Amino acid sequence: MSLDRLIEGIVRTQNPAVVGLDPTLDYIPGFLKEPFLAEFDDPMEGAAAAFLEYNKRIIDAIYDIVPAVKPQAAYYEALGWQGVRALCETIRYAKGKGMFVITDGKRNDIGSTMKAYASAHLGTFGAAGKQAEPFGGDALTVNGYLGTDGIAPLLEVCDERDRGIFVLVKTSNPSSGEVQDKLCGERTVYQMMGDLCETWGGEHLGKYGYSAVGAVVGATYPEQLQELRLRLPHTFFLVPGYGAQGGSAAGIAGAFDERGLGAVVNSSRAVLTAWKKEGCDERDFAGAARREALRMKEDLAAVNKAIHI
Amino acid sequence: MSLDRLIEGIVRTQNPAVVGLDPTLDYIPGFLKEPFLAEFDDPMEGAAAAFLEYNKRIIDAIYDIVPAVKPQAAYYEALGWQGVRALCETIRYAKGKGMFVITDGKRNDIGSTMKAYASAHLGTFGAAGKQAEPFGGDALTVNGYLGTDGIAPLLEVCDERDRGIFVLVKTSNPSSGEVQDKLCGERTVYQMMGDLCETWGGEHLGKYGYSAVGAVVGATYPEQLQELRLRLPHTFFLVPGYGAQGGSAAGIAGAFDERGLGAVVNSSRAVLTAWKKEGCDERDFAGAARREALRMKEDLAAVNKAIHI
Repeated sequence: MSLDRLIEGIVRTQNPAVVGLDPTLDYIPGFLKEPFLAEFDDPMEGAAAAFLEYNKRIIDAIYDIVPAVKPQAAYYEALGWQGVRALCETIRYAKGKGMFVITDGKRNDIGSTMKAYASAHLGTFGAAGKQAEPFGGDALTVNGYLGTDGIAPLLEVCDERDRGIFVLVKTSNPSSGEVQDKLCGERTVYQMMGDLCETWGGEHLGKYGYSAVGAVVGATYPEQLQELRLRLPHTFFLVPGYGAQGGSAAGIAGAFDERGLGAVVNSSRAVLTAWKKEGCDERDFAGAARREALRMKEDLAAVNKAIHI
Repeated sequence: MSLDRLIEGIVRTQNPAVVGLDPTLDYIPGFLKEPFLAEFDDPMEGAAAAFLEYNKRIIDAIYDIVPAVKPQAAYYEALGWQGVRALCETIRYAKGKGMFVITDGKRNDIGSTMKAYASAHLGTFGAAGKQAEPFGGDALTVNGYLGTDGIAPLLEVCDERDRGIFVLVKTSNPSSGEVQDKLCGERTVYQMMGDLCETWGGEHLGKYGYSAVGAVVGATYPEQLQELRLRLPHTFFLVPGYGAQGGSAAGIAGAFDERGLGAVVNSSRAVLTAWKKEGCDERDFAGAARREALRMKEDLAAVNKAIHI
């Protein structure tokens, strides 16, 4: 029933937003990254240390006004295991600040393998009488191309540990239609995937009418967003593509239900690079991130009035 | 043009097989794992050290008779970043022994993010004038649900660094048909995905007629395997599902072309747990893995005669 904690965070902050923690060295001001890059011989180790410190400062600047963060695994894997360590530590830090953490990994595989991904990202590892949390996120993005086998092991962990998943339904990228918009009988592939989300979530309903199985639906496709909101009444949406990818607040309006719930909207680049766009002192990069997060909150509030349970 | 190196390895060893390095603590004999689990306070660190030592001994036992290994990322992520470090070190060790390494990550995302995955798994990372290889695999498994945007960044790295990818087309699991077998017009979803592989690989053909874009097609669906071999003449297949999942050598026969090329068949559990099935001394676990790999080679040779370029 995990998405309930996300929903409660949205109501508490009156902000249906998630900040994507997708760092690259380009986004990080020189004063912060240069000492780390100079300190370590291995460029991945230096960059990973810079990523972690940068993330912590962004989290410190937004945790009271934004309910969730979404670190994108790819940007950490780009620094090898050293980057993955920074990902684990970022997740732990955000959770320590009370944020809901969506690990954006889009994992997918056969059942036995998905069991390993489920315990990696949402569960625990135990050996020799000791337990540990490998990644420790609250929710994981996943791909449903393999069908029910690849989803069922996640649902077990979601039930046991109050976690959630978001399944790719209609993605925000320009070529998403190549496969997702194809018509199979009377439904498109993305509609069929959305219907599967309703099926998979069916027995895992939370207090507010939404299940532990959410869907990823891009802000760049406003019509499909509205259509899917009506079609999938128990499926909470994670909406990427706002801002840098071209999605607008007006286009997102259809993603919300009459309580202002039903969706959490992601912004990554616009928040992380706000200091560049503002042209402020680079030492104020986290302040600029907070100002952009507040601007986004106002922008969303204009189309999505008082949020209530 | 990366799959050429895989093809040459298959011809050299006369063995179209890849061993899946998917360790779990259950597979590892007590004499090998117990000291590591006792040595480290963190159970993930102890297990990761055991995974790495286990993998090295398996690799030592098979590298002269099997051309490739396929570590499955999920089993390493299940041990957090400590496990991911063991994955990176396993890849480096296998490459040092001359093996072709397929990182089984089934990664997928929008273009900008896929660029990060491409450099993580097949490319390099550079900062402050220094370069490093984050994971260092030769090929990566990927999911094509997001269409061309999610594949194009991989192809750039494949061209620059002689690497390859395998796109999920028809997976080996029981529920793969829920999405993949649906009919869109005159084609099933998996046929459409297969056709996309031919398109994506079109400009990236190697010396032996196969492109850098391979496809994952399960041994558990023999009819589709044969049908796709004819339909996708330039697409090399990675065939999971042999052995433990129920696929037989006879069922795989249709995956090969008239030269005995066209597919590489994966076995994970049967090789890794051969010592249990044999009931041999646990200290001979790597010897048992080699005997099972030789048995599999013979089994495949019965349906796939002398392999030549």
